[in-house]
Parts: sequence; structure tokens; C-alpha cells
Amino acid sequence: MNTGSIRLYSYWRSSAAYRVRIALNLKGLPYEIVPVHLLKDGGEQHKPAYADLNPQELVPVLLHGNRILRQSMAIIEYLDETWPDRPLMPTTARDRQRVRAIAQMIACDVHPLNNLRVLQYLENTLGLAQEARDAWVRHWVAAGLSAVEQVLEDNPSTGTFCDGEVPTLADCCLVPQVYNAERFKVDMTPYPTIRRIVGECLALDAFDKARPEHQPDAQR
Amino acid sequence: MNTGSIRLYSYWRSSAAYRVRIALNLKGLPYEIVPVHLLKDGGEQHKPAYADLNPQELVPVLLHGNRILRQSMAIIEYLDETWPDRPLMPTTARDRQRVRAIAQMIACDVHPLNNLRVLQYLENTLGLAQEARDAWVRHWVAAGLSAVEQVLEDNPSTGTFCDGEVPTLADCCLVPQVYNAERFKVDMTPYPTIRRIVGECLALDAFDKARPEHQPDAQR
Repeated sequence: MNTGSIRLYSYWRSSAAYRVRIALNLKGLPYEIVPVHLLKDGGEQHKPAYADLNPQELVPVLLHGNRILRQSMAIIEYLDETWPDRPLMPTTARDRQRVRAIAQMIACDVHPLNNLRVLQYLENTLGLAQEARDAWVRHWVAAGLSAVEQVLEDNPSTGTFCDGEVPTLADCCLVPQVYNAERFKVDMTPYPTIRRIVGECLALDAFDKARPEHQPDAQR
Repeated sequence: MNTGSIRLYSYWRSSAAYRVRIALNLKGLPYEIVPVHLLKDGGEQHKPAYADLNPQELVPVLLHGNRILRQSMAIIEYLDETWPDRPLMPTTARDRQRVRAIAQMIACDVHPLNNLRVLQYLENTLGLAQEARDAWVRHWVAAGLSAVEQVLEDNPSTGTFCDGEVPTLADCCLVPQVYNAERFKVDMTPYPTIRRIVGECLALDAFDKARPEHQPDAQR
């Protein structure tokens, strides 16, 4: 398959970059990782070399040839439309709506509240102590995962994965959010359906290779 | 056109509900507004009657017949796929990516930081005064709109609207965000392209009828 060159500007621990790594792996697309260190020297994402690619100064950016693609969910849908093999979206409008809604429950209403720039604002501008910052993160993660759990449990559309028997955009978003939740020591006991699905996902090579700790820029 | 029944659970000032109202109007779909009062009695969105529809306890929800649809961007794409007339998405994968990315810059990285539940947490849990809460809102709105302005200005894909000559999902997200910015007295001077596009949008009936102040549950 000649895909043209694909370069992903990524940070090992970024949830949003992790989503796109999963999608690229699920679709079997070859790509090069360009690490962007979010903490070194005040953050490489704020330097002109990166800010010119993405004025939001957030990762990821995906370069497809000379096309600059931003926003993880929009990137994943682009990959899926450009290379229809191994689809990441279901075939009916109703199911696509459900998959996008689950993805957005996480990517709109959980992750943006807890990413690095927000935690930096809580610490540096509002002067919140570690304990209050951790409580903030856990509050929004619990609210989000609790709603996702309810949408997934006892719904006939839920299968091995969030929607049916093939991983979709929803799973690409769920797995990184659960990684993040575990990092902040969120109690995952109340979310058995989420835990089951994430277990199924991480048993697949595509998800495993996308894990933060398997990235070239991972730190210990 | 027989659309089946469409009911939108909406709150006049909700940015996310406002997006869907614009989309429904642009597509010429008839719908009934079901007001959900986010402030009365601790918030109708938290009562079982609504929480059963949406475990996130956020507006909007759209009922299409007996289908329960959540998350504004996912609802808009469903409307667009189900009724292809008057499309809200461009025809190429590249342009769809751009439109979704602009929409997500707002719907993921600006709005969720500033909605009611977050402002309530800042006030009630963190004890922040009005001034610090307003500064929080203005900080994230300015960061987001500044990036959107850069993506829109000098880009040949930008037209009368965010992408070309027809309003898209991106415009459905931009106009409510600017309404919100003005409510919080954000200085809009640095965003001439955004101001121009929002002016073009609000000159259209579909956008005008969706305005918060034109809703049945609007308060003065």
C-alpha cells in the first residue's frame, strides 16, 4: 500500500496522540513518530517550529504528505475515509452516531479538563496544591467514566468492543482515557464494562504497540 | 418530508444545544424544543427524567422517534447523514477533516472548560471568586479563539463561512462559542476573521432563529 508519508507529532503520555497511534496501528498504516516533549524547556509544543504546525500548541498533529491535520478525532475519521480498509466506523448512521457520541463523551467532556495545560493553570495561576489538583482530575474522570459505563452496559450494541465486534473510534478514545485514569489512581471498580472492553483492546497488537510505555520517547 | 418526530432537549443559553438548533434549522428539519432548565431546583438535567435519557446530565439530547442521540457534534453528523439535502459537511475527506478539526477546537478545547458544571465546581468546590472564574473563562476562550483565528485567516479554504460558501459543522460550533465569549466580555478585537464569519452566519435565518434570546425558554 502506498500511503504517502505519514508523520505523527506525538508525546508518549498524551491521550490524544495515543488515540491516533491506536487508529494508525488498527488500520495497518506505516508512520513515523516525531516526538514533541511537552515538559522540556517549558514545552516544545510552544516553540515556533511546532506552533506553526498547530496554533493550539497541543499534540497531536498528523502530516499526510504536506497536509497538516489537527484534532485527534478528526484525524482518525480522515484516516478512515482515506483508507477504507479495516474500518474504524460502523456502517449505519445510527451506529456511527453512537460511536462518535461515546468518543466525544471522553474527548470533549473528560480529557480536555485534565490535560497538561489545565493542570498547569490550576497549579501556577490558581495555586492549587497537588491534592486539590488530583481531586479535580478524579472528579471529572469519574463523572465521565460513570456516564460511559451506563451507555455501554446492557446496551445490545455493545459487543466485545464499545460497538460490536470490531474496534472503533470509541475504543481509540476509551483506552487512553483509562490509562490516564489509572495514572491518577481513579478507582475503576465501578466500571466493569469499561474494564472488560479495555482488556479486550489491550490484548490486540494494535493497541499494545500504541501504549505510552512502548513509545520511542517514553520515560521511566 | 416525513422526518419522524424530532425532539430537542435544549436550554436557551447552552452552547451545545445552540449548535444543534442551528444545524436543524440549516437543514430545514421540523423539531420540537423540550426545555431543560439547567439552574432551577438544582438543575432539571440532574433529575431522573432527564438523567435516564443522558447519564452525562448535560444538554442536548435529540430524540429521533425513539432513538436517543447524545453529544452535539455526533448529533449534527447524524442529521447530515440521515438527511443528505443541504449538507453540513464538505465533499472531500480533506475538507471534512478541516471542518471537524475547527469544530473540535471549539467543542473539545474551549467549551467544556467553561460550561456550567465547571463554573459551579470552581465556585462551590474550589471557592473561587467571580473575578477568578471570569479570568478562567476568558483565558480558555482567548486561547481557543486565537488558534481558530489563525487556522481561518489566510487559508484558501476559508470562504464566506469557515469552510467555503456554505455553512458547515464548524460554523454551527463557532457561532455559539462567540455568543458565549461576548457574554463573558472577551475582547473580540483580535479575531477579525471570526467576527466576519459570525456576522455572515447571523444574517441567515437559520442562525438567527437558533439564537438563545429567540428560544421559548429564554429569560431576560
